[in-house]
Amino acid sequence: MSSQPEARIDSEALVAGLARAGRKAQRVLARMDDAAKAAALRSAAAALGRHGGQILVANAKDIAAGEARGLSKAMLDRLRLDGKRLEGIAAAVEAVAALPDPVGEIISHTAAPSGLDLSRVRIPIGLIGIIYESRPNVTADAAALCVRAGNAVLLRGGSEAVHSNHAIHAALAEGLAEAGVPAEAVQLMPTQDREAVGAMLRAAGLIDMIVPRGGKSLVERVQNDARVPVLAHLDGICHTYIHSAADREMAAKIALNAKMRRTGICGAMETLLLDVNFPAGHDVVAALLDAGCELRGDARAQAIDPRIMPASANDWDTEYLDAVLSVAVVDGLDAALEHIASHSSAHTDAIVTGDVAAAERFLAEVDSAIVMVNASTQFADGGEFGLGAEIGIATGRLHARGPVALEGLTTYKWVVRGSGQTRP
Amino acid sequence: MSSQPEARIDSEALVAGLARAGRKAQRVLARMDDAAKAAALRSAAAALGRHGGQILVANAKDIAAGEARGLSKAMLDRLRLDGKRLEGIAAAVEAVAALPDPVGEIISHTAAPSGLDLSRVRIPIGLIGIIYESRPNVTADAAALCVRAGNAVLLRGGSEAVHSNHAIHAALAEGLAEAGVPAEAVQLMPTQDREAVGAMLRAAGLIDMIVPRGGKSLVERVQNDARVPVLAHLDGICHTYIHSAADREMAAKIALNAKMRRTGICGAMETLLLDVNFPAGHDVVAALLDAGCELRGDARAQAIDPRIMPASANDWDTEYLDAVLSVAVVDGLDAALEHIASHSSAHTDAIVTGDVAAAERFLAEVDSAIVMVNASTQFADGGEFGLGAEIGIATGRLHARGPVALEGLTTYKWVVRGSGQTRP
Repeated sequence: MSSQPEARIDSEALVAGLARAGRKAQRVLARMDDAAKAAALRSAAAALGRHGGQILVANAKDIAAGEARGLSKAMLDRLRLDGKRLEGIAAAVEAVAALPDPVGEIISHTAAPSGLDLSRVRIPIGLIGIIYESRPNVTADAAALCVRAGNAVLLRGGSEAVHSNHAIHAALAEGLAEAGVPAEAVQLMPTQDREAVGAMLRAAGLIDMIVPRGGKSLVERVQNDARVPVLAHLDGICHTYIHSAADREMAAKIALNAKMRRTGICGAMETLLLDVNFPAGHDVVAALLDAGCELRGDARAQAIDPRIMPASANDWDTEYLDAVLSVAVVDGLDAALEHIASHSSAHTDAIVTGDVAAAERFLAEVDSAIVMVNASTQFADGGEFGLGAEIGIATGRLHARGPVALEGLTTYKWVVRGSGQTRP
Repeated sequence: MSSQPEARIDSEALVAGLARAGRKAQRVLARMDDAAKAAALRSAAAALGRHGGQILVANAKDIAAGEARGLSKAMLDRLRLDGKRLEGIAAAVEAVAALPDPVGEIISHTAAPSGLDLSRVRIPIGLIGIIYESRPNVTADAAALCVRAGNAVLLRGGSEAVHSNHAIHAALAEGLAEAGVPAEAVQLMPTQDREAVGAMLRAAGLIDMIVPRGGKSLVERVQNDARVPVLAHLDGICHTYIHSAADREMAAKIALNAKMRRTGICGAMETLLLDVNFPAGHDVVAALLDAGCELRGDARAQAIDPRIMPASANDWDTEYLDAVLSVAVVDGLDAALEHIASHSSAHTDAIVTGDVAAAERFLAEVDSAIVMVNASTQFADGGEFGLGAEIGIATGRLHARGPVALEGLTTYKWVVRGSGQTRP
């Protein structure tokens, strides 16, 4: 008997046990009202503050192990906590406590001809699985959002952050328990075994939704292997189309911000489409080049500025997450729409134009989670959208799209109130 | 080289080709307004009327083949069309045309501190796959609902109804085309090869959602094999709990209707829970037995009436879809909630009670798609819920639950209108 199937059975039993405990705890959470859930999160935030010293000691172990393993400076920076970052984590939990509770909202209410009173009422989804990498703050952020909307959560963090995650989780659980939330409402996977992730992905009926938080290879594995519904985006290949009627200064300013404000975020522009009739393409291109961005263009784009390198076919489907941008010259709105339909990852696409009709066609016909006119794609963010926080950005078509926060962590049920009706 | 992989490649290429054509046609449909889509469906209904003779001839071929193959009387009845049924199919398409168009609805609208104008706008999902069995009316019903909400559809009907489905599809496509809808917006799978169903189920990214319409084995296969999101319910194990404070007459009347009005529908009661303190359990049980229902009870239920047979452990998880019912006596509301949490299929569960507090606890704590007080579970139906029609009833937790009609065939996008904003 090989050890492979053995390991698999163990992981499945482990996940099933955790999931059943989480589902049971969720039934308690579902009965707690707005004030009780908010108080529990404030209690969790206080516990994070109280246990700050232990969390920093645990984090120092992760940092030491990471340095010994030769993690990159960027990875170590994502992993590292200090007093200020810890305050930020507790403050984020407090901020989630202050958000309005979506549970109990009456989505619709009608009276049927039969006399039945029908309403659709917002309820928690149930048990959410979060699979994430090296940032220990996700442990607290994701747990707080799930609990705020009445969900239990099963967290599976990265091995680099294992000590930090356990310390943060212990503090959270203690604070929540003091406020009457069962410990099993927020569980951290007790093993770093990769097979346990596989068991989570296969746990349809036990875990209701999985949110991967991390790089493309993590999201890709989750999307490929999951039997549980996944809320995620794989790529952010975001386009900005400078229409012929765009304001020249606005075009340069938006393009520069969309690419260069932060190049590593999923809302960063990755392809610039310049309308062949936009008269100031050179200014836009020069602003980007002068800011240190590498540009890769088609033949017509290259003709604008000799510093533009030739683009290969791959460039139109590449998320650089860096100071690199592909640039194409397009023959008007239809060509821009066609390019976006072929290459967009359905995350965020924008038009810059002073022509209202062109703007409205773009907004109507581009089929992405977020469509924008005269704004930087870097605004694609739950905080900027007034959601208070986000569990992630989704590019799928069902349930929730774009920045997803508390509402996306809920579902609904039909509540039917009768007075003895039978169906004829 | 075996023929298996060859067949698979063919099916996948076939489905990919149909899906790409469908997605392209959907972009045209998405640009059509309410009136244009309604007119197209009225044109389709008219074409169904005009081609009634051909449809009946095609149906007669299916009936003859079915008789030759020895199909059951019930199967042949589901398959058979006549003038009146055909009128009903066309009238149903007209009724869908008259429903309000959900596309374009502003779900939310806010102004961000950045000055950005943010709205969530309802849009079609894209391409819907419908996999169904012997009822040829599904060809028209499902296509009409998908098109009304701006979706393209790929239909895959049962082999018993192949001639009927092709004739109905041809009429629909002709009527839609006359009103400017591309023929590829409504496609019927050109083969009955089972492997083509597998290819549909694996077509993630090409087909956006699959709705199975048929018996449990079909739904089970679709749920097990699909990589595409599925909207469905597997079982309708619906409970009616007669609380201690239930009105005696109402309890008997509702229980009788919930079980016996139509025993074969998914909203039919399959388990009756009698509160140990409900004084008229005998009347409820007698009403059902006298109506010809077989009752299978636990020991305390059997003590109520000698005609009640003993239930086995399986009975609490069985959807009879017949004049058979399991009956348990429970020790109050908590025990009823516990039984339902353990055995419900999350379809529809009801309480009968005059006690408002008990009713509200039941409505809050039973975690099914539909929860009812003082009404027959047989009301679980899109028409009865005022939706005008239904594409199906869903017991999953994401996207849409309970009876799903036009709104469940839509999603949304974020529309962001700026005036040159860049993110600080």
